[in-house]
Amino acid sequence: MATYLITGTSQGLGLALTAQLLSRTTAEVSHVFALSRSSPSQELRELLDTHPSRSTSVVASVTDDLAVGAAVEQVSTVLGSRGLDVLINNAGTNDTHPKGMRSVEVEALMSVFELNVMGVKRITIAFLPLLERGNEKKIINMCIIAPRIELAGEPHEPTYAYKVSKAAMNMLTMQYALDLQDSGFTVMAVSPGWLKARFGGGGVAQLTAEQGAEAVEEIIREATKEDNGKFVNIRVPGYKFGGTIEAYPRGEMPW
Amino acid sequence: MATYLITGTSQGLGLALTAQLLSRTTAEVSHVFALSRSSPSQELRELLDTHPSRSTSVVASVTDDLAVGAAVEQVSTVLGSRGLDVLINNAGTNDTHPKGMRSVEVEALMSVFELNVMGVKRITIAFLPLLERGNEKKIINMCIIAPRIELAGEPHEPTYAYKVSKAAMNMLTMQYALDLQDSGFTVMAVSPGWLKARFGGGGVAQLTAEQGAEAVEEIIREATKEDNGKFVNIRVPGYKFGGTIEAYPRGEMPW
Ligand SMILES: NC(=O)c1ccc[n+]([C@@H]2O[C@H](COP(=O)([O-])OP(=O)(O)OC[C@H]3O[C@@H](n4cnc5c(N)ncnc54)[C@H](OP(=O)(O)O)[C@@H]3O)[C@@H](O)[C@H]2O)c1
Ligand SMILES: NC(=O)c1ccc[n+]([C@@H]2O[C@H](COP(=O)([O-])OP(=O)(O)OC[C@H]3O[C@@H](n4cnc5c(N)ncnc54)[C@H](OP(=O)(O)O)[C@@H]3O)[C@@H](O)[C@H]2O)c1
Repeated sequence: MATYLITGTSQGLGLALTAQLLSRTTAEVSHVFALSRSSPSQELRELLDTHPSRSTSVVASVTDDLAVGAAVEQVSTVLGSRGLDVLINNAGTNDTHPKGMRSVEVEALMSVFELNVMGVKRITIAFLPLLERGNEKKIINMCIIAPRIELAGEPHEPTYAYKVSKAAMNMLTMQYALDLQDSGFTVMAVSPGWLKARFGGGGVAQLTAEQGAEAVEEIIREATKEDNGKFVNIRVPGYKFGGTIEAYPRGEMPW
Repeated sequence: MATYLITGTSQGLGLALTAQLLSRTTAEVSHVFALSRSSPSQELRELLDTHPSRSTSVVASVTDDLAVGAAVEQVSTVLGSRGLDVLINNAGTNDTHPKGMRSVEVEALMSVFELNVMGVKRITIAFLPLLERGNEKKIINMCIIAPRIELAGEPHEPTYAYKVSKAAMNMLTMQYALDLQDSGFTVMAVSPGWLKARFGGGGVAQLTAEQGAEAVEEIIREATKEDNGKFVNIRVPGYKFGGTIEAYPRGEMPW
């Protein structure tokens, strides 16, 4: 009977996760709030229309204080005496700088931060009172696998501002985990895999958004208080990085 | 015969590092550029006056594009045909939020980012052409030991924006390390220890700024290309965290 709010649901992983959640039984997932930056995409609209009694479209940019405030009001009204059980911070943006880290301008870094770090911060704080009234008290942030110097020879996507912002978001996740530990929260960062969504480089990516969504939802569902403050990789057997390293073994990752 | 530029030298670790560098022989350290946000403090002025032929005061805020541009001109003129060997990104700022991560405002997070992340980025890019002409090609960024959930019981300083910004700065360091790997650079993050400087909480901190500076300078001097992309802790025996964990064992750290 859990209630979910997920951000960035018009396309990609967010859309697939919304579908995945709504494919569970009502006893498992009682309501899904699908937040999108602007009017829902046609795919999202059709999906929500199929589950009218247990889904709500919420329109708000995660970078807009006023819009987020109105979103909290709307969600609170629908929930009534219920709390919000799970918040999934999925909205995010990417950058591409084929000429290398050297070519990233301060402005590009700042605008990616504004969405990927401050957006997560703003939404988390805004929905905290509703989460405190929930039973599950889970906050799940979408992270990436940290690129490490040992893997320097591997092909890396030239998304430098993105990687720097996600490292900051991981630390934000850890700080909330520490802060909310005694209030019964489970705050985690989950890496959804390299997906054929907008960020995943289309054809060369390994998994479909649906595979990622299924694996992420499994992690969220099974997460317990023991997982507070962890960075977790999904489990999808059979994929390798660099021909040898198991790509999605599930389990805790180093930063 | 190495030339150094260090930022944030009016007080604390930056001042101590400037003194430490100038205490080496001219054969080891041929010139130190001491960058400070505003006119040098009296301590810095006295220190530089003692070594007039191999030190230069450079006044610039690391958040100011124009001032940084002028600083590059000034350093370039003094260097003449020489390059810059070592850049130490030390300038930084802190925050204090005793009411926990929950009480950190977006604005506070942004302003700490502007200095601790964008400042490092701005200075690194601005001085890159001079570093490319140097022999050592070392870029050293001051980091912190990542707080981990297993240490949740430990006393933590309520410097949340600071920790999030330093995680971003670590990833920035790693990205530059990857980008500059083939150009012969050594880009590292060094944790200087918990110092009795402004950030270190005064009396409760463990080491003096001078102890930190000595240990940091040793790491920088001994660093080789093998250390590119590493996060390194200082070596100062005899200090413990939580009564048991060796605080400063030197060597590579997890994120
Ligand atoms: N795809 C991958 O391989 C991969 C790997 C690791 C992590 N991730 C993470 O997974 C998450 C989703 O990635 P994705 O590949 O599905 O990306 P995507 O296809 O670009 O989707 C991002 C979503 O965020 C929304 N969004 C952007 N700005 C927003 C704002 N200001 N307010 C509200 N929503 C906003 C977008 O809305 P619009 O449709 O209106 O633009 C879009 O629906 C991201 O956090 C990403 O970092 C993805
Ligand atoms: N102290 C510790 O325990 C500790 C532990 C881990 C890491 N660190 C790192 O070590 C570095 C130095 O720390 P600290 O304790 O020595 O700090 P500090 O005493 O506060 O010194 C910081 C220095 O940065 C300068 N600065 C601030 N804003 C600047 C700007 N916009 N442009 C140029 N310079 C600017 C300050 O100048 P003003 O004097 O004009 O304010 C000051 O000289 C920081 O990066 C810090 O994160 C310190």
